[in-house]
Amino acid sequence: MSGLFITLEGGDGVGKSTQAALLEQWLSGLGRTVVRTREPGGTEVGEQIREIVLHHRGDIAPRAEALLYAADRAHHIATKVRPALEAGNVVIQDRYIDSSVAYQGAGRVLSGETIRDLSMWAVEGLLPDLTVLLDLDETKARQRLDAAEKRFDRLEAEKAEFHARVRAAYLELAASDDRFIVVDAARAPDEIAADIRARVEALLG
Amino acid sequence: MSGLFITLEGGDGVGKSTQAALLEQWLSGLGRTVVRTREPGGTEVGEQIREIVLHHRGDIAPRAEALLYAADRAHHIATKVRPALEAGNVVIQDRYIDSSVAYQGAGRVLSGETIRDLSMWAVEGLLPDLTVLLDLDETKARQRLDAAEKRFDRLEAEKAEFHARVRAAYLELAASDDRFIVVDAARAPDEIAADIRARVEALLG
Repeated sequence: MSGLFITLEGGDGVGKSTQAALLEQWLSGLGRTVVRTREPGGTEVGEQIREIVLHHRGDIAPRAEALLYAADRAHHIATKVRPALEAGNVVIQDRYIDSSVAYQGAGRVLSGETIRDLSMWAVEGLLPDLTVLLDLDETKARQRLDAAEKRFDRLEAEKAEFHARVRAAYLELAASDDRFIVVDAARAPDEIAADIRARVEALLG
Repeated sequence: MSGLFITLEGGDGVGKSTQAALLEQWLSGLGRTVVRTREPGGTEVGEQIREIVLHHRGDIAPRAEALLYAADRAHHIATKVRPALEAGNVVIQDRYIDSSVAYQGAGRVLSGETIRDLSMWAVEGLLPDLTVLLDLDETKARQRLDAAEKRFDRLEAEKAEFHARVRAAYLELAASDDRFIVVDAARAPDEIAADIRARVEALLG
C-alpha cells in the first residue's frame, strides 16, 4: 500500500474543508490512514510562520512574504507530509504550491514562475498525485449582485477583479497539468464529493 | 552625500558589536547619520523570524531555515536598509549574506552557492560597499587548550571543526571580493577600529 498525496485548491469559502472532511471519512471507511493538514501552518513552526504572514500582511515586503510561505512549505513537507507518504498514508492537504502561484501571481508583484521555482526548491520537487480545484464562478456571483442593483464600492470591485485573476490563474494551472481535476463548487457538497471519490478510486486502483 | 552600507562579519565573540559601536561613534562625530542594525532581526517581522530560527533550531528543516533567513533579509533590506541608504545615511549592520553563506555552507547541507543565490534574490542584488571580516584564529585558540592538556569532548571537537570550516569559508569569500577587509580580531579593539576607520575614510572620499 503506497502513500497518496491529495491537495485541495480554490478561493476562500469554496468548500475545501467540507470536501476534505467527506474525503477523509470515505477513505477511513476503506481502512486507509488519513493525515489531514494545511498550508500555511500544519506544523508548530508553520503555525508561527502563519501568525507572521496573517498578522503582518500589510507590512511584509513581497519577497519576504513569498519566502515565508516557502519556508513553511519546506518544513511542513520535510517533517510531516513526506514521512506520512513514506508510511503509506493518504495526505489530504488544504492548499499547496498552486495557491502560492495563483494568489501571488494574480497579485502581479512576482511572477507565478518565480513563485513556483521557489516552492519547488523548498519541497525538493514533491508534487501531489491529485489536486482538486474547487472552481466557483465569480462572474455569476457578481452578475446576481448587479441584477439586484447593488453597487460595488471601489474596494469590493478591486476584490472581485483580484478573485477573478486568481480563478483564471487556477484554471490555467489546471489546464496544463493532468494531476488536476476541476469541479464546479456551486453544486451540492455530495455531488462534488462523488466526483472527487471517483477520481481517487481510480488512483487507488 | 550618498549612503554607505557597511557589514560586519565573523564568528560569535570576535567583537563585531564593539567595532560597530566604535565606528558609529566616529561617524556620528563626522556628522553622519548612522543606522545600526542586525540580521536576523532588525525589524518587527524580523525579530519574530529570529525567535523561530533561534528557538526551534534543532527542529527546522534545512531548506526551511535557509528560507527563513532569506525572508528576514528580504524584509529588512526592503523596509529598513534601502530607505536609509536612499536617505544618504550610513548603515552599519551586524551579519548579512556572507554569514549565511559561511555558516550554512560550512554545515554542508546546502551549498554556499545556493544560499547566496537565495539571499541575492531576496535583496534584489544589494551588496555592501564594505564588509569587515573580524578574523579570529581558531587554531591558535585550540593549540593553547591542547598545550594545557585539556582534552576536547566530542561535542567541543565537532564545534571546533565546524568553526574552522566557517572561518575558512569566510576567508575564501573575502579573498574573492574587493568589498572585504580582513582584520585580525586577536588585537586590541582600538587597533582594529583604526584599521576599519582608515578603510571607511577612503570610501567617504
